[in-house]
Amino acid sequence: MTTGYAVLSPGGKLEPWTFERRDLRPDDVRVRITFCGVCHSDLDAIAHATDVPLVPGHEFVGEVIAVGSTVTSFRPGDPVAVGNIVDSCGKCPACLDEEETYCLEFPTLTYGGVDRQDGTPRYGAYSQEMVVRDRFVYPLPEGLDPAGVAPLMCAGITVWQPLSRLGVTSGTRVGVVGLGGLGHLAVKFAKALGAYVAVFTTSASKRADALALGADEVVLSTSAEEMAAHAHAFDVIIDSASAPHDLTPYVLTLDFDGTLCMLGIPPTYEVDSMALLRGRRRITASGSGGVRDTREMLAFAAQHGITADVEVVPAEQVQDALDRLARNDVRWRFVLDLR
Amino acid sequence: MTTGYAVLSPGGKLEPWTFERRDLRPDDVRVRITFCGVCHSDLDAIAHATDVPLVPGHEFVGEVIAVGSTVTSFRPGDPVAVGNIVDSCGKCPACLDEEETYCLEFPTLTYGGVDRQDGTPRYGAYSQEMVVRDRFVYPLPEGLDPAGVAPLMCAGITVWQPLSRLGVTSGTRVGVVGLGGLGHLAVKFAKALGAYVAVFTTSASKRADALALGADEVVLSTSAEEMAAHAHAFDVIIDSASAPHDLTPYVLTLDFDGTLCMLGIPPTYEVDSMALLRGRRRITASGSGGVRDTREMLAFAAQHGITADVEVVPAEQVQDALDRLARNDVRWRFVLDLR
Repeated sequence: MTTGYAVLSPGGKLEPWTFERRDLRPDDVRVRITFCGVCHSDLDAIAHATDVPLVPGHEFVGEVIAVGSTVTSFRPGDPVAVGNIVDSCGKCPACLDEEETYCLEFPTLTYGGVDRQDGTPRYGAYSQEMVVRDRFVYPLPEGLDPAGVAPLMCAGITVWQPLSRLGVTSGTRVGVVGLGGLGHLAVKFAKALGAYVAVFTTSASKRADALALGADEVVLSTSAEEMAAHAHAFDVIIDSASAPHDLTPYVLTLDFDGTLCMLGIPPTYEVDSMALLRGRRRITASGSGGVRDTREMLAFAAQHGITADVEVVPAEQVQDALDRLARNDVRWRFVLDLR
Repeated sequence: MTTGYAVLSPGGKLEPWTFERRDLRPDDVRVRITFCGVCHSDLDAIAHATDVPLVPGHEFVGEVIAVGSTVTSFRPGDPVAVGNIVDSCGKCPACLDEEETYCLEFPTLTYGGVDRQDGTPRYGAYSQEMVVRDRFVYPLPEGLDPAGVAPLMCAGITVWQPLSRLGVTSGTRVGVVGLGGLGHLAVKFAKALGAYVAVFTTSASKRADALALGADEVVLSTSAEEMAAHAHAFDVIIDSASAPHDLTPYVLTLDFDGTLCMLGIPPTYEVDSMALLRGRRRITASGSGGVRDTREMLAFAAQHGITADVEVVPAEQVQDALDRLARNDVRWRFVLDLR
């Protein structure tokens, strides 16, 4: 039996709930969870929960407590980290390329949906234990604060993937829209990659925060003047704002052939056609990342000492943390202490 | 005095109109126009004409009849071609890179707006003569039918630019949405670049046309089955459909990291966010091209014997041609004979 926090009826709040994890399959790893990040998408999942019980949580660290008969990469006692993908078809071109996010049969997510092998519901990591296929378990990087690593497994890989794929390197001019769980990590990773980094914010009060995180400058996106002064100023924009918003003002700050990558997922994106055409600008979208990118991200984080700035709260206070997150009252990620 | 065809009152039809071209400035070239293509955007300009008289026409060929005092590249008698840009600031990074489409001060267009030097209205090439700055005049490639070259100067460069910039080459899988003035040239250029080319069409009756133009296959976009069978099938999609339409079904036929380039310009583009995210797909937009790309396009066209398939009509029948174009009754571009 394991204890966690679940939504037990649609529209409900999180409550303690005790349930069983599956018996180990040959390639399974059983993890005693120590820290689990609170992701903005957990709020959406809770608000729209219809299949209950719903146990959120998909960015966590912990310790291996048992392994299946064929597991050779991990043993009990190993510190590990897990993100939001726990299985995939393993046979499609994307999986063979370790890009499991794009599994043609859709990856199995840490929570929500069902296990692809036995059809049982997937319960997340707001809980004491997790069972995961070994392929989707990563050694915890040495020398990093475990609580600060937990958010790297979703927020971190989500910003790392586009920065890496869009070739951000020394001298690239990067704009980051939104300063929260994702945005603050985008600033850290982009700076460590050698980029010039500006943060777009709607709130002048975040200026000092952004500079403290390492941003080179801050652009107040509500100021038409400041935005106009940054026309053609960026090669890459990472847009982490979760609320629906007009992309056009940000697109206009892209230079020729620049790319805006959306991380938030409103149902559709709408963008002024001339803003794209008049600079051959591109928009794209990205979400989390596969095994190869996650491994690279963790190695880079270890090398550069990058973790999330977190506020660790006792697991019992999860509902309070969610309420505060809904009000954007967090610097910059809540992490549940499940020890 | 020169004679042309103009909209003389808002909402009106084209009528013969006689007007003056400017006296030659030192870097000007005077061209006796022989053939001018009828572009789909002419229809829009005519429908929304408020500044009248409006003389449409921005893809033409002709013969030099006089040159300004500093012009050294052309002499009377030279056969030439001109597109939809006739001047630009010449100083911004885009202009210095011969990407005048993206001139930060906006290029001067062949018709619509005013001359950037003397402020006089710009009248287009549905007329017998044109005066153009030498920098925006191109030698007519030898060995190509002049009437078929005229549409290369707008439709041709508009499809060439994204094919070239997106790296279409041998083996690239290209989808072309819409088979008209632009689409049919996209098929010809993409095939000559070595691509595998599919045409998306809403009308089964265009299947034979597309194959005759060299397409490798035709996908009926109204068939959910055919579209589903082409999921992840393309690296690049050139979308030349001018009517507003949902981009999502086409985006879903892009493979990972694939790009859809819009050539039509509805006010905004709307695209399903998950369709982008689930394949790291990109959308972009493109319109015409600068001096460097135009020169490359003409050289490639000459090398591969590419011209537009045109229906040449006497200039007096311009209104009839426009009416037929509005009904899509053209294979594939009308060209006015202004000799």
